[in-house]
Amino acid sequence: MRGVLDVPESLIPINEALVGGLARVEICFDRQLETDIPPVNELCRHIERYRGKMLRPTLVLLCGLAAHPETAATLAAGRDPGTLWTEEHIGLAAVVEMVHMATLVHDDVLDEAEVRRRGATVNALRGNEAAVILGDYLLASAYHLCSSVESRDAAIAVGDTAMTMASGELLQLHHRDNLSLDEPTYFEIVDRKTAALIGLSCSLGAAASGADAELVGALRGFGRDMGVAFQIQDDLLDLMGEESIIGKSVRRDLAKGKLTLPLIHALAHATPEARGGLLQSVRGLGSGQGSMEAAVDQLVATMRDLGSIEYAKARAAGLVRRAKDALAVLPESPVRRFIEFSADAVVSRRF
Amino acid sequence: MRGVLDVPESLIPINEALVGGLARVEICFDRQLETDIPPVNELCRHIERYRGKMLRPTLVLLCGLAAHPETAATLAAGRDPGTLWTEEHIGLAAVVEMVHMATLVHDDVLDEAEVRRRGATVNALRGNEAAVILGDYLLASAYHLCSSVESRDAAIAVGDTAMTMASGELLQLHHRDNLSLDEPTYFEIVDRKTAALIGLSCSLGAAASGADAELVGALRGFGRDMGVAFQIQDDLLDLMGEESIIGKSVRRDLAKGKLTLPLIHALAHATPEARGGLLQSVRGLGSGQGSMEAAVDQLVATMRDLGSIEYAKARAAGLVRRAKDALAVLPESPVRRFIEFSADAVVSRRF
Repeated sequence: MRGVLDVPESLIPINEALVGGLARVEICFDRQLETDIPPVNELCRHIERYRGKMLRPTLVLLCGLAAHPETAATLAAGRDPGTLWTEEHIGLAAVVEMVHMATLVHDDVLDEAEVRRRGATVNALRGNEAAVILGDYLLASAYHLCSSVESRDAAIAVGDTAMTMASGELLQLHHRDNLSLDEPTYFEIVDRKTAALIGLSCSLGAAASGADAELVGALRGFGRDMGVAFQIQDDLLDLMGEESIIGKSVRRDLAKGKLTLPLIHALAHATPEARGGLLQSVRGLGSGQGSMEAAVDQLVATMRDLGSIEYAKARAAGLVRRAKDALAVLPESPVRRFIEFSADAVVSRRF
Repeated sequence: MRGVLDVPESLIPINEALVGGLARVEICFDRQLETDIPPVNELCRHIERYRGKMLRPTLVLLCGLAAHPETAATLAAGRDPGTLWTEEHIGLAAVVEMVHMATLVHDDVLDEAEVRRRGATVNALRGNEAAVILGDYLLASAYHLCSSVESRDAAIAVGDTAMTMASGELLQLHHRDNLSLDEPTYFEIVDRKTAALIGLSCSLGAAASGADAELVGALRGFGRDMGVAFQIQDDLLDLMGEESIIGKSVRRDLAKGKLTLPLIHALAHATPEARGGLLQSVRGLGSGQGSMEAAVDQLVATMRDLGSIEYAKARAAGLVRRAKDALAVLPESPVRRFIEFSADAVVSRRF
C-alpha cells in the first residue's frame, strides 16, 4: 500500500490521494506522541522503523471514500478525493496504526526475551522494559486521540477491539506448543489477534463518512475476512518465502510454538507414521537442534505431498473472494475496484 | 482504606457506605474483564491477589460524595450516602483501579525479568509474556469501560493520564542508575507515574457528581499532592520498614537503580568523603555483592546523620498539609473530614 501498489491507470487518482492522506496520518501520529519529556520523544522515534505498508490506515481512508456520498461526484469532476477526508478520518487512521504499533512493540518484547534466553545482557533487559512501557504509551496515546477527536462509538469500538486483540494473543499463548490445535481454534485466534483490527479500520472509516449500520457492518466483514486471509498468507510466506528468509521466519513461528494453517492441516491429514515424522521435525525446530534448513525443507515437502500448502492457499483465496463479495453493497466505482485490488494484493504479495 | 481504617465514630456511616461502594466496584471490575475465552478468565483471576487497599476507587467515591449536592442532607437524615453513587461513579472507580492494576502487572514483568537474569526458565518466560498481554488486556478493558459508561471528558482524561503515567515510567527508566538525579526530576517522575492517577481519581469522582471546574481542579490538586506524599512514604518504608521486609524492599528499589528521596537528599548534602561511601554502598546493593542488611543499616545510619530521613518525612508531611488546605473549597462536613483523615493515613501508615 502507501501508494506503492502498481495500480491500473483508472485507479491512479485514488492512489495519489492515498499518498497525501497517509502523509497527513503520519503527521497526526507523530504530533499525538510528542511530549515535553525528551527521553520519551527519543524512544518514540524508534518506532518509525516499524512503519510498513500502513495497511490499516489505508483501509480507514479507502472505506471512508467508499462510504462518502460525494466521492463519485468528486472523481467525476476530476477533483482530488483526498479533500473528502476530515480530521476524523485522519485521526482514526492514526489511532488504528498506533494500536497496531503497540502490538508490534509488545511482540518485540517477547522476541527480545527469546534472545535473552540465549544469553542476557543488562542492555537487552533495559530494552525490554522500555518496550513494555513504550507499548503502553502507544495504547494510551491511541485511546487519548480517539476520545479527543472522535465519536463515542469509535472510542467504544477501539476499546472493544483492543480487548479482543489481547484475548486473541492470550488464547494463542495458551495453545502454544499444542500440536493438536484444531482449525476452529486457529481461526478464532487469527480472527481476534489480526482480523479484528483490520475489520475495525474498515468500519471506522465508513462510519466517519456517515455510513449506515448495514454498510459499516458489511465493510467490517470485508476487513475481517481480508485480515484472516492476510494471516494465512503470512503463514505461507513464513514457510515458502525466499530461501534466505525462511530460516529466520520459520524459526520465529515454529520455535515459538505457533502453529500455522498448513501445518495444522498436515498434522490432521497425515498417516500415523508421517504424523510422527512431522511432529519430530517440529519439535526439533522448537528445540533449535539439528539443521534448520534441512528440517524446514523436509516439512514443506511433506506438507506439499499432503496438499496442505494448496489447502492453505485455497482457504486464503476463498476468504478474499468472500471479502470481495461483501463489497456488493457498494456501487461499482473506482474506489470499490481499489479496495478489491487491495484484497487481491493480500494473497498475491510476496513479502 | 476498604473500610478497614480505624475511623472516629462520626465517620462510621461513611466508612460503611464505602465498604458497600467498593463491593459494587469489584463486581463492575470483574464483569468488565469477563470473556467467553476461558484461558483469559483464568489469567484474570490471578490479578485478584494484586487487589490491595483500593485507594484510587476509594478516592473516586469519596470525592463523588464531597461534590454531590445531596450528601449533606442524606447524612443529616441518617440515610445511606452510598445511594448517591451512580453507575458512573462505580464504573469510573473500576476504571482507575484497572489502570492501576495494568501498571502493577507490567511492573511485574520487569520484576520477573530480574529473576530471569539470575537463571531463566521457560516457565518464567511464559509468565512474562502472559503478563505483558494481560496488562494490555486490562488497559483495553479500562478504556472500553470508560468510553462505554462515561462522559467524553472522562475518557479524554483517562487517556491523558495513562500517557502521563507511561511517560513518567519512561523518564524513571531513563534516569535509572543516575546517581546524580536531582530533586526536581525526582518530583517530576513521581508526579507522573504515581500522583497523576490519584489526582485523576479525585477529579473523576467530583466531575461525576456534577462539580464545577474549580472544585474538580481543587480535588485533582489534593490528589496529586497526596499521591506524591504517598510515594515518599513508600520510599521511607522501603528503607525503614520491618527488619524482615527491608532486605526485599531495598533490594527492589536500589538494585533496580531507582533513587528515593532520602537518598537523593543524602547524596546532595554529604561531604565529599561521605558521598563516596554512600555511592559505594548503593553500587554494592545494585551489584548484589556483600551483605545486604549491613549495607542498608549503614546507608540508613548515614542518611539519619545527614537529616535525610527527617527531610523526606517533612516533605511528605508538608504535601499532606497542602493537600488538606486544598480541601478548603469544601464546606466543613464528615465527608471532608474523612478525606482529610485518608490524607493523614498516607504518612502515618506502616505498610
